[in-house]
Amino acid sequence: MDVITEHELINTIKERFANYTNVSNVITNIGDDAFCFTVNDSTICITKDILIENTHFKLSWISATDLGRKAIEVNISDIVAMGQVIPKYVFIGLGLPLTLSKEFILSLYQGFKDTCDEYKIAICGGDTVKAEQLVISITVIGISHCENKIISRHGANVGDVIGVTNTCGDAAAGLELLYQYGSNYTYNYDEISLIKKQNNPKARRQEAWIIANYASSLIDSSDCLYISIQMLIEQYFKGANIYLEKIPVSDHLRNVFNIQNKWRQFALFGGEDYELVFTVSTMASKILKKLLPNISYIGIVTNAKRVKYFYNGKEQYIIYSGYTHFHK
Amino acid sequence: MDVITEHELINTIKERFANYTNVSNVITNIGDDAFCFTVNDSTICITKDILIENTHFKLSWISATDLGRKAIEVNISDIVAMGQVIPKYVFIGLGLPLTLSKEFILSLYQGFKDTCDEYKIAICGGDTVKAEQLVISITVIGISHCENKIISRHGANVGDVIGVTNTCGDAAAGLELLYQYGSNYTYNYDEISLIKKQNNPKARRQEAWIIANYASSLIDSSDCLYISIQMLIEQYFKGANIYLEKIPVSDHLRNVFNIQNKWRQFALFGGEDYELVFTVSTMASKILKKLLPNISYIGIVTNAKRVKYFYNGKEQYIIYSGYTHFHK
Repeated sequence: MDVITEHELINTIKERFANYTNVSNVITNIGDDAFCFTVNDSTICITKDILIENTHFKLSWISATDLGRKAIEVNISDIVAMGQVIPKYVFIGLGLPLTLSKEFILSLYQGFKDTCDEYKIAICGGDTVKAEQLVISITVIGISHCENKIISRHGANVGDVIGVTNTCGDAAAGLELLYQYGSNYTYNYDEISLIKKQNNPKARRQEAWIIANYASSLIDSSDCLYISIQMLIEQYFKGANIYLEKIPVSDHLRNVFNIQNKWRQFALFGGEDYELVFTVSTMASKILKKLLPNISYIGIVTNAKRVKYFYNGKEQYIIYSGYTHFHK
Repeated sequence: MDVITEHELINTIKERFANYTNVSNVITNIGDDAFCFTVNDSTICITKDILIENTHFKLSWISATDLGRKAIEVNISDIVAMGQVIPKYVFIGLGLPLTLSKEFILSLYQGFKDTCDEYKIAICGGDTVKAEQLVISITVIGISHCENKIISRHGANVGDVIGVTNTCGDAAAGLELLYQYGSNYTYNYDEISLIKKQNNPKARRQEAWIIANYASSLIDSSDCLYISIQMLIEQYFKGANIYLEKIPVSDHLRNVFNIQNKWRQFALFGGEDYELVFTVSTMASKILKKLLPNISYIGIVTNAKRVKYFYNGKEQYIIYSGYTHFHK
């Protein structure tokens, strides 16, 4: 049988079916973190993510409350990665196996509510149906007013520097630990920090708001740093030089995965960090670094039409070794 | 283990978690066909439905293209049941089992696209992930401008008549045939018509637009006529007299399920018809009937705080015998 890959599917969908490129009032491209359209002077941004048991999470690895929080948080990350957008409303679609306890479902909802309350987002409805595995389909709606800035993925200019908030790779490293040792294992402090980044991600809302005042393009790193750079750069026929030694990595990651420098793999190819990756002019980059000291600048936009990776001045040939959710 | 019912879950969610009743700009209640909020002079309506294999459909009973068409159509039904709202954008979230062929997936998408094209709706993105069963999560966004009318569920006035478009019960009867005989059976003309109503539902967009000029409340009959009436009436502490002999039923349904008048059960308790159920003043009801001759008036709104059913003048004691998707 002719099985389709996710990449092939997305390309086919884009080519054959995406029919909105000529639609008036639409200001984003397919593949942007959120879909945005304008109504009068406002911009409405909508994101939709579907999380499926055993594809995106295992119930033994994350508590119901954390799962609920994470499901909302990752959608908010997509919203705030559009710039100055305020997440306002959420819809929750659930497919529930009959084997789940009432306690589990209520804890899951408590997680949804905790995060929604934190962001002052209103839970406005959804749909609950029976399923064989737990399915969580979240839609978040954000609003941006005319004075606010929307930053899409396609604005990188040659000469801009490439920045990232905080550190890269922790979340995927945390997932790797859960794969290897499960949840009934005594983890050390570094390991717990990595698992926490996997199970309790935080959208970078405040950082996004500030970055949007300066950035030429912006994305979140949910798919991994490597893919985020590709999406900001190669997709728009630009190039970049990335300096691997500048990629920010936590001590936790370095301590736990120090054998054969495995931490480097996580930093570049590990998904689910939900940090922000952006481009900004050299001049603005300095102002931004003062406002957000946790930012690291890891490279520069070129006109080479491909991303080159350097380590201590020497070009490295990088082969993508991440995963896709679809064929994992 | 303490298993939760759908009804219990929804009530718990409403009580504990729905936190938008005080949110400014929101103009609908939880449970309305779509969620609506205002932005400047416009109203944005959003609907979200999640369809799950073996809960909502079986792949042997419906073609991939029909399934794609239906998934969009039922969401449009929720949008147009809000009144004069134009469906504009759609997001498609898919959970795909790896066993599905490329051909199936492309046909499914062709179905999505056929219906979107018909309504001039733009497919604007979504998410595709691996799943053990096919999951289709559709979000449709509609826009209503200031000159357009939004009709919610709560406007019924004592003395209004209760109307329904076209006939009731066919879709559920079609599903019953598929349950009984499967897809490799030689169906007669009447039976094929019923299955067609199940597999190829049509949202009543034009009717909704016209009805919205006159109606005091409006809903679609996706959950069945009985529940639709309950939602327009009892939920808002009104009552109604419904005259069973006035409920419109197709000849197909009467012919196929004539034993023990089983067609009556389908007409009242059969879901997935996607007809419109509404209330309208007696005076306006006459104008509306001239504009839409297919409308039937089946009862009247009272102040009795409960819905009474009559057959040829005699009150009938009706016990709900439908199903919920959740515990089916």
